[in-house]
Amino acid sequence: MDIGIMGAGQVAQIIGSKLLEKGNRVRISSRNIDAEKDKGPFGKFPSARQWRDEQAGKGRQAFAGGFREAAEFGELVFNCTAGQGSLEALAAAGEENLAGKILIDLANPLDFSKGMPPFLSICNTESLGERIQQAFPRTKVVKTLNTVNALIMANPSLVPGDHDLFISGNDAESKAMVTEMVLKKWFHWKSVVDLGDISAARAMEMYLPLWLRLMGALKTANFNIRVVKGN
Amino acid sequence: MDIGIMGAGQVAQIIGSKLLEKGNRVRISSRNIDAEKDKGPFGKFPSARQWRDEQAGKGRQAFAGGFREAAEFGELVFNCTAGQGSLEALAAAGEENLAGKILIDLANPLDFSKGMPPFLSICNTESLGERIQQAFPRTKVVKTLNTVNALIMANPSLVPGDHDLFISGNDAESKAMVTEMVLKKWFHWKSVVDLGDISAARAMEMYLPLWLRLMGALKTANFNIRVVKGN
Repeated sequence: MDIGIMGAGQVAQIIGSKLLEKGNRVRISSRNIDAEKDKGPFGKFPSARQWRDEQAGKGRQAFAGGFREAAEFGELVFNCTAGQGSLEALAAAGEENLAGKILIDLANPLDFSKGMPPFLSICNTESLGERIQQAFPRTKVVKTLNTVNALIMANPSLVPGDHDLFISGNDAESKAMVTEMVLKKWFHWKSVVDLGDISAARAMEMYLPLWLRLMGALKTANFNIRVVKGN
Repeated sequence: MDIGIMGAGQVAQIIGSKLLEKGNRVRISSRNIDAEKDKGPFGKFPSARQWRDEQAGKGRQAFAGGFREAAEFGELVFNCTAGQGSLEALAAAGEENLAGKILIDLANPLDFSKGMPPFLSICNTESLGERIQQAFPRTKVVKTLNTVNALIMANPSLVPGDHDLFISGNDAESKAMVTEMVLKKWFHWKSVVDLGDISAARAMEMYLPLWLRLMGALKTANFNIRVVKGN
């Protein structure tokens, strides 16, 4: 499948590499594909152009460019931009280039401008997922993957045993496609819990403060939660 | 131990009954101990006076009355009021009656005034736990138990296997006392994760929207989460 990724940072590169590994063609995107990136928590972090060249060197169909080209390219589109920049990046991609397509939104609206811990720039009675759905009514927004770090997103077996991923969105068929193909077949998630329509993105994004505190307590970002049902 | 409970509803009664069972003297409290209560999700729900009489009939040291009397009575105090009314109830209890004491805050600031799902009346850059700590600086506020329903709070084995409870607060000794005596010895919690100072109440309270969505997806309120650490 041809997949467009909004973003070219670590999350975009990790997700993009996994999608390439599964035989897809992938185009990542940013304002400047030669921009130097800070070294982040997941180690090596090349520019979009370097990433593309590396992947191409492995014989994979990798591309890098602007937001608009990635949206045009993708039959399926991922939003892997930082939450604070998502609406702007998607606007640059063009409403018409996202219309009728599934957009997997895994961003979190974390605002680091006042230091750590970050707060949410949108929450409680709204969410980034809903804002995106409102701004792109012809696009089928599916919120998922935002409750784990990028390494776990694409490699859930890094966390042993049973643990759960959440999904929400207004279109049942789109959620089913994302669950079966992307999450289960390509990424090997075993348990995906459907929390309802896109307003459930509030709950999924508001989990982030707990995730951040848990990262501090556990001293690792490689963890997830399992929902355990009572008798 | 003599324990005062702010509140006389289902949470207060379930917590109070468990504390009595463990040999403590317990005083629950409300504006009107004869107030009729709606039947809630946990079944039978007597008035405070009826609850006291029932418990006394089992030979237990149960009392019911106003907020001030309960705060005076308690060497340890629980806040089991609905989050929207917590600060008012605690103000009625009197700052001097809570000074120097541990206050276990298990309330959530859920606002149901606009229907389901409720939103949080305080969140993101503040929390109910912090508001209480600010309003009662001589009291040692410990936030815990708010991430599960009242039945699970006092009976964690209703959820099988391993699952986690969270705790936060500014005073390490108070957290240790609450963890060892209240949570582990009396309530039989096995895993309690310390998330830091009282500002972590933000994270614990902001988990509630996810809890509510999970309740909808699982069709039960009897569940909890387990944190699973990666390799």
